[in-house]
Amino acid sequence: MVPIVGIVGGRNAGKTTLLEKLIPELKRRGYRVGTIKHDVHGVDIDHEGKDSWRHTQAGADTVLVSGPTTTAMVQQVAAPPSLERLAQRYLNDVDLILTEGYKTSPYPKIEVFRRGASERLLSDPSTLLAVASDTELEVGNVPCYDLNDAAGLVDLLEKRFLAGDRAAVHLLIDERRVELTPFVQRVMANTLRGLVQSLQGVDEPERLEVIIHRWP
Amino acid sequence: MVPIVGIVGGRNAGKTTLLEKLIPELKRRGYRVGTIKHDVHGVDIDHEGKDSWRHTQAGADTVLVSGPTTTAMVQQVAAPPSLERLAQRYLNDVDLILTEGYKTSPYPKIEVFRRGASERLLSDPSTLLAVASDTELEVGNVPCYDLNDAAGLVDLLEKRFLAGDRAAVHLLIDERRVELTPFVQRVMANTLRGLVQSLQGVDEPERLEVIIHRWP
Repeated sequence: MVPIVGIVGGRNAGKTTLLEKLIPELKRRGYRVGTIKHDVHGVDIDHEGKDSWRHTQAGADTVLVSGPTTTAMVQQVAAPPSLERLAQRYLNDVDLILTEGYKTSPYPKIEVFRRGASERLLSDPSTLLAVASDTELEVGNVPCYDLNDAAGLVDLLEKRFLAGDRAAVHLLIDERRVELTPFVQRVMANTLRGLVQSLQGVDEPERLEVIIHRWP
Repeated sequence: MVPIVGIVGGRNAGKTTLLEKLIPELKRRGYRVGTIKHDVHGVDIDHEGKDSWRHTQAGADTVLVSGPTTTAMVQQVAAPPSLERLAQRYLNDVDLILTEGYKTSPYPKIEVFRRGASERLLSDPSTLLAVASDTELEVGNVPCYDLNDAAGLVDLLEKRFLAGDRAAVHLLIDERRVELTPFVQRVMANTLRGLVQSLQGVDEPERLEVIIHRWP
């Protein structure tokens, strides 16, 4: 199961802004990141008049659009799936899932707090992993970070949820992650490193991706 | 595997317009419909400035938005997944998949033909299921329908791909379809019919959906 961490906070506390700092920092460190945004008011995606929009309007239960670098989906549901369901079905190929707006979920949370925007913390302290605030707060044992300290918060996420994953070997078969033992990871990594280092102009690759989407 | 039928045709032949006629007709007959649109130029979905758009811009590999009646996903891919992959991963809970724009796929196709818009049919005759045209065409054994004859085309789709599925019992557990034998389908259907007919005001339901998303 991919770890899930919630970004919570009052309205306009700056949840999306914090995500915009955490995601690039996680990507910089080589992780694959998924996000889930809870939108109680309804999903405003897709453009009126586009073919995908027309398919949905005509009554299609699920519409996919497949482009060169993006796959998009719009699916009608009878009830919003649980976080677990969404994670399992759509996010099994990422290292970490950050959610926005699921403030009563049982997952660990980072609460965004800004003077003026919030009166007090709204999270159940038992699920509070950290606070990201523009003001120093005393919250028992819960660490408090500066709102802009993405590196510090990602250090914490890494230590708590991603230890050992860094620089690991991920194998996706038909877009599903296959778990590999450390031994198999080493064998695969060493084999591929040996192969690519025999190529002209390749020295010591830092990150390697092999994607086979049609067998030659 | 859910059956896949392609809607093909030249530019501006009216593929989306035909889909807008077929989808409601299929829905009217009680089927669940998925569509896949191939967009070689890139996927234009999501709105600049929205939270989901900001997550993607920040570098998230997959962004989900979960609303009361819709789940949306925007996923970055290294290469466009195959139709099979897309169908398997995202469309295993529909009865029929209609594609738009995969003209070289091996799946059966309905080609849309309009005088003026096209010079000649572009499909490989071996995968051509039917032609939907504004003019009478002779295409060997391939049946030719009027462009507006959604009922006729859906009769054909039903006969070829959906026979027996109509009025069947579908069971989705955690959003995955579980195949049921005709016997189990009958037991479930009769049990539920018995139950709901004991409810006040319910007579003979035509379509029944039971969704349990939290156990009471």
